[in-house]
Amino acid sequence: MDRTAVLVMEMQRGVVGDIARFPDLVATCEKRDVFRNAAHVLRGARNSGIPVVHCTAAFRADRAGSHARTTPFLAHLLKDPAHMLDGTPAVEVLPELWDPGDLESRRFHGFSPFTGTSLDMTLRSLGVERVVALGVSLNLGIQGLAIEAAALGYRVTVVTDAVAGIPEEYAQAVLDHTIGLLATRVTAARVWEGGR
Amino acid sequence: MDRTAVLVMEMQRGVVGDIARFPDLVATCEKRDVFRNAAHVLRGARNSGIPVVHCTAAFRADRAGSHARTTPFLAHLLKDPAHMLDGTPAVEVLPELWDPGDLESRRFHGFSPFTGTSLDMTLRSLGVERVVALGVSLNLGIQGLAIEAAALGYRVTVVTDAVAGIPEEYAQAVLDHTIGLLATRVTAARVWEGGR
Amino acid sequence: MDRTAVLVMEMQRGVVGDIARFPDLVATCEKRDVFRNAAHVLRGARNSGIPVVHCTAAFRADRAGSHARTTPFLAHLLKDPAHMLDGTPAVEVLPELWDPGDLESRRFHGFSPFTGTSLDMTLRSLGVERVVALGVSLNLGIQGLAIEAAALGYRVTVVTDAVAGIPEEYAQAVLDHTIGLLATRVTAARVWEGGR
Amino acid sequence: MDRTAVLVMEMQRGVVGDIARFPDLVATCEKRDVFRNAAHVLRGARNSGIPVVHCTAAFRADRAGSHARTTPFLAHLLKDPAHMLDGTPAVEVLPELWDPGDLESRRFHGFSPFTGTSLDMTLRSLGVERVVALGVSLNLGIQGLAIEAAALGYRVTVVTDAVAGIPEEYAQAVLDHTIGLLATRVTAARVWEGGR
Repeated sequence: MDRTAVLVMEMQRGVVGDIARFPDLVATCEKRDVFRNAAHVLRGARNSGIPVVHCTAAFRADRAGSHARTTPFLAHLLKDPAHMLDGTPAVEVLPELWDPGDLESRRFHGFSPFTGTSLDMTLRSLGVERVVALGVSLNLGIQGLAIEAAALGYRVTVVTDAVAGIPEEYAQAVLDHTIGLLATRVTAARVWEGGR
Repeated sequence: MDRTAVLVMEMQRGVVGDIARFPDLVATCEKRDVFRNAAHVLRGARNSGIPVVHCTAAFRADRAGSHARTTPFLAHLLKDPAHMLDGTPAVEVLPELWDPGDLESRRFHGFSPFTGTSLDMTLRSLGVERVVALGVSLNLGIQGLAIEAAALGYRVTVVTDAVAGIPEEYAQAVLDHTIGLLATRVTAARVWEGGR
Repeated sequence: MDRTAVLVMEMQRGVVGDIARFPDLVATCEKRDVFRNAAHVLRGARNSGIPVVHCTAAFRADRAGSHARTTPFLAHLLKDPAHMLDGTPAVEVLPELWDPGDLESRRFHGFSPFTGTSLDMTLRSLGVERVVALGVSLNLGIQGLAIEAAALGYRVTVVTDAVAGIPEEYAQAVLDHTIGLLATRVTAARVWEGGR
Repeated sequence: MDRTAVLVMEMQRGVVGDIARFPDLVATCEKRDVFRNAAHVLRGARNSGIPVVHCTAAFRADRAGSHARTTPFLAHLLKDPAHMLDGTPAVEVLPELWDPGDLESRRFHGFSPFTGTSLDMTLRSLGVERVVALGVSLNLGIQGLAIEAAALGYRVTVVTDAVAGIPEEYAQAVLDHTIGLLATRVTAARVWEGGR
């Protein structure tokens, strides 16, 4: 069976936590039980020795490392000089999803976890061939994760009730019409069925 | 003003042309006038000396270079041993969109144009800072193009009536809820307004 | 045992063949029996079903895809408008080293085989974990191959009598003080001992 | 004039500092005045607002992120479970070369600074087109830096008296027969002549 890792996309305090900037995304996560489902997946992974990698976003005050003006979304977010600053609580992983044995792949650019980061090297060093994806959002990050992982030759599983996007019906459509082409879709309750 | 290139995503005979495998995608392209709009964008580019790069997909009969079994979509497509074989008419760019001065970035893996290809090197060698994207599809390739290009620091413009995906309402939702975060959206009629 | 591929670095007619631009490099290849040793390695590979990938260099007349002015060496070489032009005999692999079943990874930029190419994707699609390297030169290409392959997690074997560089004593020093840190060094006669 | 950044390769306490593992490398650095010359280059950079990026190496105790067994050199170094552990003084940049405004690109794999890291993204986000390289060593890291940077289209300048390798005559030969093909070579005293 393929060696697996769990990739957790931007489940950070400033994204979907207590100091989140995106209230609609938090609301849909709560409605869909994303936090509880994510915690369930991560517990199962850790119990089986499956590595968990948090793919996080952060910015420096001077914006070095970020393509700060090239996308409408980032240009908008970074009007706030304090948005997701490295070293502040906003960039921390949600405490209920963090374990000291977890790995982190922090990036300062883009919306996807592989391009221009060490994530592929981390996974290769661990012999990983399959990634189980959860987190936010289905608008950008989860799509980017699945598209890049597929291009790199990983098998991808997306945990359908541990991901979210907005609006909610769009998130479901992304699962149906994009993610379904790239990945196996399972619920948190079933992701570890049949072993890792 | 930024130096620009046009990226044409998989406008190939075997994808949306006379020997296309995806009739629904062809139908929506025709309905949306994608072929005519694409030709209009490319004419404008060539008249201004803007490079045109066709990002094409192909497979070898022995599947070397392709991650042939890792995604549901590709596993399905490659049940056909003749699907989009390198060197066959299926991989050719639509004749009405091809010009001998165009460039091609052919890949054998994945659904997005940058990861694991020379496309970034081609664009950098030309001093390109902005890409204008058209082609198919809004299910995979155009998202991948926009997400990867944004991660690499390019500005992205998507020509809204020279792209397509299925179902049609999903394609429109992708433009609204994913592409809009990453790219400027314009129609073919207006893409070259105000110069390149 | 690790799955292996052979990487042949720039054994092209315009580099070390009948229309070579680098006579000193050709002379040292002949003196060291590089051509015969390379052919021996490739025969053994093909007999065992080990894939052979020719990593070749080429340029377009318009220099698109090449960083034509950023290095002293390339700036010098490309004063010749006909240097290693794509589609000309100069870019062909030496006939005695070519087999129709071989793969090719052609690049238009740089002096190393992995950065900004599809070579890593090709090898991953084949399940390759170890590369056996031969070709030219120990001044640039073989060093780049070994450094990049090591960074990507491949095991590397360099065939000491199927590589060359100039001056000859420098080539030997590179094998001793750089390649030896990154790779296993074997002669062509022994490379397939103990299986692949 | 091209926008420039300085890349400092592994000038860390555990590599060439007070707790260095490589005494021969320290001795040659001292003999060649590498520390003083490096400090001179960095002062000039900071005075002109030129960004300084320290390209550092580190390992985790569990080796996640490192290809720990694929190269002879690393297999040897990592027999020591405490070698260059992340979070220990060994991975710190030499205090006399560090400034709080500097950037760091830390990697856990390989011997070169670009492959599988965010360094290219950092430089692109800053608009950098030329890199000035110093540090250690001319056996691996400086070659890797120059080869990868050239492949990515950067202009490269190597500060000849702020780099070192062992044995010393080999280091000089690398400057002559490899670096000279890829980079401009200048002394620390002259690197900022004529502006940045």
